[in-house]
Order: sequence, then C-alpha cells, then structure tokens
Amino acid sequence: MFRGTPSGIWLNQDLHEVFGINVKPSLESSDTLFDEISEKLSRPEFSPRALFKKFNISVLCTTDAATDNLTHHKTIKESGWDGRIIPTFRPDAVVNLDAPNWRNNIADLGRVCGYEITDFVTYIHALEERREFFKGMGATATDHACITPKTAELSKIEAESIFQRALHGQVGNEDSARFTAHMLIEMARMSIEDGLVMQLHPGSFRNHNDLVFQRFGLDKGCDIPVQTEYTRNLQPLLNKYGNDTRLTLILFTLDETSYSRELATLAGHYPAIKIGPPWWFHDSLNGMARYFDQVMETAGIYNTTGFNDDTRTFCSIPTRHDVWRRASANWVAGLVVRHLVDMDDALEMMFDLSVRLAIRSYKLFE
Amino acid sequence: MFRGTPSGIWLNQDLHEVFGINVKPSLESSDTLFDEISEKLSRPEFSPRALFKKFNISVLCTTDAATDNLTHHKTIKESGWDGRIIPTFRPDAVVNLDAPNWRNNIADLGRVCGYEITDFVTYIHALEERREFFKGMGATATDHACITPKTAELSKIEAESIFQRALHGQVGNEDSARFTAHMLIEMARMSIEDGLVMQLHPGSFRNHNDLVFQRFGLDKGCDIPVQTEYTRNLQPLLNKYGNDTRLTLILFTLDETSYSRELATLAGHYPAIKIGPPWWFHDSLNGMARYFDQVMETAGIYNTTGFNDDTRTFCSIPTRHDVWRRASANWVAGLVVRHLVDMDDALEMMFDLSVRLAIRSYKLFE
Amino acid sequence: MFRGTPSGIWLNQDLHEVFGINVKPSLESSDTLFDEISEKLSRPEFSPRALFKKFNISVLCTTDAATDNLTHHKTIKESGWDGRIIPTFRPDAVVNLDAPNWRNNIADLGRVCGYEITDFVTYIHALEERREFFKGMGATATDHACITPKTAELSKIEAESIFQRALHGQVGNEDSARFTAHMLIEMARMSIEDGLVMQLHPGSFRNHNDLVFQRFGLDKGCDIPVQTEYTRNLQPLLNKYGNDTRLTLILFTLDETSYSRELATLAGHYPAIKIGPPWWFHDSLNGMARYFDQVMETAGIYNTTGFNDDTRTFCSIPTRHDVWRRASANWVAGLVVRHLVDMDDALEMMFDLSVRLAIRSYKLFE
Repeated sequence: MFRGTPSGIWLNQDLHEVFGINVKPSLESSDTLFDEISEKLSRPEFSPRALFKKFNISVLCTTDAATDNLTHHKTIKESGWDGRIIPTFRPDAVVNLDAPNWRNNIADLGRVCGYEITDFVTYIHALEERREFFKGMGATATDHACITPKTAELSKIEAESIFQRALHGQVGNEDSARFTAHMLIEMARMSIEDGLVMQLHPGSFRNHNDLVFQRFGLDKGCDIPVQTEYTRNLQPLLNKYGNDTRLTLILFTLDETSYSRELATLAGHYPAIKIGPPWWFHDSLNGMARYFDQVMETAGIYNTTGFNDDTRTFCSIPTRHDVWRRASANWVAGLVVRHLVDMDDALEMMFDLSVRLAIRSYKLFE
Repeated sequence: MFRGTPSGIWLNQDLHEVFGINVKPSLESSDTLFDEISEKLSRPEFSPRALFKKFNISVLCTTDAATDNLTHHKTIKESGWDGRIIPTFRPDAVVNLDAPNWRNNIADLGRVCGYEITDFVTYIHALEERREFFKGMGATATDHACITPKTAELSKIEAESIFQRALHGQVGNEDSARFTAHMLIEMARMSIEDGLVMQLHPGSFRNHNDLVFQRFGLDKGCDIPVQTEYTRNLQPLLNKYGNDTRLTLILFTLDETSYSRELATLAGHYPAIKIGPPWWFHDSLNGMARYFDQVMETAGIYNTTGFNDDTRTFCSIPTRHDVWRRASANWVAGLVVRHLVDMDDALEMMFDLSVRLAIRSYKLFE
Repeated sequence: MFRGTPSGIWLNQDLHEVFGINVKPSLESSDTLFDEISEKLSRPEFSPRALFKKFNISVLCTTDAATDNLTHHKTIKESGWDGRIIPTFRPDAVVNLDAPNWRNNIADLGRVCGYEITDFVTYIHALEERREFFKGMGATATDHACITPKTAELSKIEAESIFQRALHGQVGNEDSARFTAHMLIEMARMSIEDGLVMQLHPGSFRNHNDLVFQRFGLDKGCDIPVQTEYTRNLQPLLNKYGNDTRLTLILFTLDETSYSRELATLAGHYPAIKIGPPWWFHDSLNGMARYFDQVMETAGIYNTTGFNDDTRTFCSIPTRHDVWRRASANWVAGLVVRHLVDMDDALEMMFDLSVRLAIRSYKLFE
C-alpha cells in the first residue's frame, strides 16, 4: 500500500537508519520486525532523549494551547537536560469562535491569567500576557490555523459586540469569520510588539469525516484541503503591517496553485512575508520539487524559511530532513549544471536551505 | 497542426501499428494514404471484430442511456461471438432536470419499464429496475456527468415536490442543482445495494459554442472544463456512504488542481473513493506524468484504478493503452533508479497499473 | 538575493553579453561595475538606437493610452531612422470606469478627437477613430487589462445609461464591471472591422500595497495575481465572435491553473483564440517549461503566438528571447529524443516558436 508514497520512504529509511533493520516489511517479516523494534525501544540508547541527541536535533518546537501552563516544558527545563524543546503559542481554541467549547476555553484563559475575561479589552490583554509567558518559556513563534486567511479590521465597538455575543453563546452567522479575520490582524500587531514570529496555515477542512469525528473526536486525521485565496484575503493585514520589517509572517499552504500565483508574488513584494516549506501532504519528494519549481523563481530563496517538518512521528524526523536536503541539493545542482548559479553560490544556498534560513526565520539563536 | 499533440502521436502510431503504414501524412501523401487505408478497411482482417481480437481487448464498455433497451448488446450476445462488450448505466438524461427533453426521457423511462412514472418513488423504483436490467446484460458500472459534484440530501417531501414541478415543466431556479445533488447520493445508495461501481466525472461545461450547438446539436466536442470543487461538495455523500467498503466511487477530473489538493487526499482517506485515470484532455503523456506526480504520493496507487481510455476512435485503443503503460513504466522506473521502491515492488506495480487495478476496480471478473 | 531567479539570470547575462563584464556582482565589485557600466553607456555604441540594431530587434511595440497623440512615434518616424517602433492601442483608462480620473480621461479623449464626448455612441465613435489613428501610425494590436475577463453584452439603453451615470460621477456598484464586460465585446467587434489583433491580460490585482500607492501612485510594481476564470467569462464574447476567423484574440494569464484547463481547451476549439506566451512572473525558465508542458498538448503550438517579452528593461530583451529560444529548444528536443516528432518537424517548430508564430499572430509583416 505504501509503494511510492512518502510514508513508504520514511518507514524504510527509519527502519534502516534508526533501528538498523534491513528486512523488508511484509506479512512474513511482521512478527520478527515487531519483536526486534520492541526489544530495541526498551534499550536506553533508544530513549527519546538519547534519540534526540543521536538525531542531532538543535531545536524541537511543540504547539500548545494559549491556556496551557507548559508544565512539561517546565519539567524538562528543571530536569537539567540540555536538549532544547520550546513551546509555540497556538491560540486557535480561544480565537476561533466556532471552536468546540470556546466559552470553556475563555474561562480557562481567565483561570490561567488569574482574572475573569468579561470583555474584549481584557481578552486581548490576556492573550498578550500568555504570549509573554510563552516567550519566557522559550517560544519564538506563534501558530494560527484557519479555513480561509481572510483578514479584516473591526471597529472596537464591533469587536466588543461580537465578543459579547460569543460570551453569551449567541454567535451570529458571520461573527466567527469576522472575528478570526480581525484577530489575525491583532496577532500581527502583537508579533510586531513582542517579536514572536507569526505562522499562518490555512486551507484545511477539519474533521471532514463525520463518523470518525462522532466516534473519536477532533483532529483524527480526517482533514481535507480546500482552495485557498491569499491575495485579496491578506490585503487588509498587509496594508496595515506588510511593510513593517519587525513582522515575520510565515505563510503555509495546502493549495499548491497559490505557490506561483499568490505566495511567491506576495513574498517577493512584502518585507513581512516569508513562505514556509511544503507542508503536510506536500512534505514529500514531489511536493518539494513542485515547491522549488513554482516558488523560488519569483520569491527567491531568501523569502523562504528552509525546512521544518510537522510530524508527530519522532523517528521520522531525521528522514524528513534528509529528504528535504536531498530535494534541495537536487534543485540547486540543476541550477549549477545549467550554469544558472556558480558553485560558490550553490554552496551558500545549500547551507541556507539546510540550516540558516530556518534558524534566521524563526529567530532561533537571537 | 498535430506536432507534439496526443492526436499526432495516436495518428502516427495507429497508421504504423494497425495499418502498417510508414509514410508520413502530408499534403503530398494524403491521397495515397486514403486509398491504402480504404483498401485495408475493406479486408476481413480489418473488420471491427477482427481488430477487437487483434487488439487483444478483454472488455469494452459502452455507455448507454437509462432508457436504452440495449438491443445491440443483445444482438452481439446472440451472435455467438465471444468478444466481451458490456453496457454502462448512464442516467444523466433522466437525472439532470435541465437535460434537454427531460420530460420525454421520463416518459421513455416509464415506457421501457412498463408503467407510468408519476411520482418520485416510482421514479426511483424505475431506476433501480433499469440498473438491474443493465447488470443482467453484463454491466459492472454506472457513469454520471455533472457540472459540479455537489451532493446534498433532500427530504422525501422536497424530492417529491421538485420532481412534481419538473414533471409539470415548472423547474425552479435551484431545482435542477438540488435534484442532481440528491440523486448522486441516491445513486451511491443503489451502488451499495446492487454492487455497480459508480463513476463520477464532473467539471465539463457542455455545448460551450452556441453556433455549433444550434447547428449540430448536443455533444459535438464543444465542451470546455471549469474549476471543480470536491472537498465540500462531496462531503454529504461521503458522510453517508464514504466509509462503506461496499461502495466504489471512482472520481474523474478535468481540473488538475484537484489532484494533489482534493482527490488524492479524499481517496487516501475514504475507503469508498478511488481516483480514475487522467481523462479526456489529460489522456496524454504530460497529462499522465502530472497525474503520477501529483496523485500517487498522497493517494498511493492502490487508491487509483489503472487505465481506461474514453475514446470514440476504435483504432486508437491500443495506442492509448500503450502510452499509459509507457508513462507508467517511466514513473515506476524513476522510483527504482532513485531506490524509492525495489525491483520486486516495481514489477508488481507495473502489472497492477497495466491490468490488475482496472480489473479489480471495475469488478470485471467477479 | 537573486540566486536562482530570472532577475539573476538576466542580470548576469546582460552584463556579460551587452557590457562584456565577467566580474561577479558583489559588495566588493559594485563600485567598479558601476563605473564601468556608466562609462560604457556614455559611448555612442551604447545609445538606445545602436543597441536596438545590435540586439537585432525587428519590431518593438510600445503600449499607449487611447488619448496619446503618439508624438514620440512621430519624432522617430520623422528622424529618418529605420528602426521599427510601433504603438499599441491600450484603452484601459477610458474603458474601465473605475480607472482613476476616468472623467478627465474622457475629456482628453474628446480633446484629441476634436469633439466633446457626451454620449455612448460618440464615445464608441471616438474609440474607433483613435484605433484608426494608431493603425495609421503602424499599430497592429490592442491591449486590454482587467481584473476578470468577464464579458457580457448590454443593450444600447443600458450601455448609454451606465455611460451617463459615469459621466456624471455616479458610477453604481456593478456599473464598472458590467461596462468593461460589454466593452470587451465592442473591442472584439472593432478588431474584426479594423484588423487590429486583440490582446487580453486579466488577473492582476493592481496597486495591492496601499502605502506604495499613496506615496508613489499607480503601477509601481505592487500588483499581485488572483485566480482567473475564462470558460464562463468569455462565453458571451466567444458566442458572438469566437468562430470568426477575422478576429485574433490573444489571451494571457497570471493564473497557470488555466493553462491546461481553460486556455488550451478554448484555443483548441475557437478559431479566434490564441494563447500568448508565459507572462510577467512566468517569463522565466520554469514558467516556460510549465507552459510547454501544460498548454501545448491540447492547444498545439499553432494556437500559440511564440514569444514577446513585456519588459521595461531594454538591455534584458536579448536575454529574455534567448531564454525563450533555449526553453523552446529544450522542449522540442525532448519530443525528438522520445520520437514524438521527427527532426524535420522539429526544425520547423523551432523556427515557428522563435520567429514565425509571433510575426504571424501579430500581423507584423502584412
């Protein structure tokens, strides 16, 4: 089933590189493989921290709810271990009014802040405080999901009135979309003030399979991409902050048609915008090839951010970055053999694509 | 005019392979070629049945109106010839309310069933009977065209009331779209019950050229593709039947932007969905290369259906399948030389892509 | 910053080919390069006319407002110089009601025609006169920009009434879109009558960056592409004139998703339509490769128009055409080595792609 898929590539390479297994997975070999992997995972050199070191990971970022008290991050810090694991501020559950349990989430937000949130001003203040807390815990970035990257500023009165309706469980038809559109602009403003890098990844229709959602709940891998429009949707945010070099707004997409048409042209124009790596379904050899083909000519590599994987599969991290470096090297080599860049530039580009762009874009060593 | 086009490739290869002609078609050679082809076509070894055997065709499927009594299929069966030619149930003319002569088509449907169709329940029953008849005549699949793959369930009362309006020639503004959206769900339900594979090919703006339509009528090759959305449109159908393994819903597209964004992700997720081969304008070397590039990583080949051509040009059938096999082999070989699959897997994949996937998806030997 | 971008390629090749400079541009070399280029530009062999001859340019077309009296064109003609520089009729500023200063532009149009424009009929007449004037000055084509290629015919009364509202500064909500949609059909009608080739390049969201617009005004490079729909939008125009072989309507796009889905299929079907070369952001090696890949199979090269660059950078003209010829040769060679065309056809195709298609499509030597 995995022939020719990224999952197949990762699995084979993980087995070989991480577990030293060269037997091909099959019906016949499955029991042996299971036993061998289980045995190895119980050894100290296969503990998460040992693998973290073996994988040579500089920084690993989690994404955490705005209401999270980051206990595990504290535990790691206090354990004396020197692996760098930092949080990322992901406020979707308190920003998207149609998030399940939004009112409970607001109550949680008040609880973690130590005061009740009864109006929009307090709400904004609470978010700013939480960002400060995350930053203190090492965070360098925020992360925002939305079905469409629509941005539009509300007046203070409108924002307050939508917020009040939501607090009273009376979210109107357009309220949720308008509120998120406004909050993305607020978040850009906060990023300019506190320096956190802002990531936006729109275009995923969440919980598409109702049966799975009813039985197992949110975010169980039933998300299907939809068309995503950036040019018109982001204009209000960009007209306010797009020329501000203090802002880094990293755009992701599941709609590859936006690569050459919208993302590359926006990133080529606005100082604040950078394009994130090929994401999710496109974190693959062909996905990367299309990304290099369609993004780089117009955006230039210096408006992109190198590579970060987005995996829940710890052991696949080295393979995914290896795939990225091979895809990058293949693209750069193509430029060299056609004499479009010389070897000096190519070596710089490879170092940038492999390491420096990610470090710089996410302000990882500032 | 045909330089570098699929028509050019087919024509050259057909002349060479089928007619043994190696002269390049040109103004000078046209008369000689015409005479040579005419002479050959009159020979017994160039009769359709002789060519069918020479082309080594296992199964040829026609598409037939729901009201068709399949006389020609009966004639072939009764002739004692062992070539397998089977019908496909294509009910567009009785399902799409804006089909020209819909009311006459319903009258025909009643006539072929032997009772008058005066309400929605009888109409559904008639369709089920016709499907049973087609199945008895060898059909394994149905085929559905629509401008957009919108699905949405109507209440029984709504369905009946739209149907009554249509019977009385009073189709309202939204009626046709809502009725088709409902009927696609009904057709999926029937497929689960009778086992016929359901094919859906949306996104063709039919009869775009009004002059040609006025002068020559329907379906004269003036169809131009439009953008097609699957993620939101198919959700109602998929929430009802997408997890049901008894359903095989094969999706085609003329909008290649849906390959990596919607079709591959839907087929990767829902057990009922498979992706049909590159269709119509994309039944070409580049169209196939884009299909392999954009579909396979996320869907995996086992959620695709191999190849079926959709030609009215009998002699081009071997060439089209040859192009598919070459394009497949080129893609698989690319995986092998980059060590992404091994040779054992590659050989299995080639057999699957050439023969087995089509046979299995269309239940051709069950 | 320019590594791997078209700007980088053009810059390097321009320096080498035009200025004989082989030093790599860098912080260290910048002063020397500046001095060397400045010195060379002051020499007579680097004058625009000398470079025009050196670049071997057959025809250079400017684009000019409908109200332009083409003084510079007159001056060139009267100077006795034999370089061919011709105008192109671009009436956007008097056709798009939401163009800044539309009323002033109409007043200018009246002034240059010698009569006041107070109604739609006079307005149409004035446009016809201006086209005639441009034609007399050597123009062979018109050029039309719009955000969407929507076409729709208005009744005479509607056209007049929108025109009157606009003249009185009372443009209604839909007026501008409907007027442009009507005027595109009018322009096609005029093209049939006077033989000027009609170019349409939709899909650019102009002046996206409000800060730049406020500070520096119109058209300062802040244009971002948007999705563009051709199939439904162009149907009214095509149903009226698409089958008329006297019309040449050249379509450009910034939305590459339209290549295989809409442009190639429309151009393959309608005698009047041809597809322009990859434009603007897509005037690049990868942009051209995608164009060849996605357009040619369905449209055939004889429904395309070869290459015209769209540059404001005079010295980059030879490089841009060189890039096109290399990209063309690479594509054609790929067809040859795969035996899809033979060498005789390939040589014809190369001559067509390099020179003949552009000359023929734009009627440059009729």
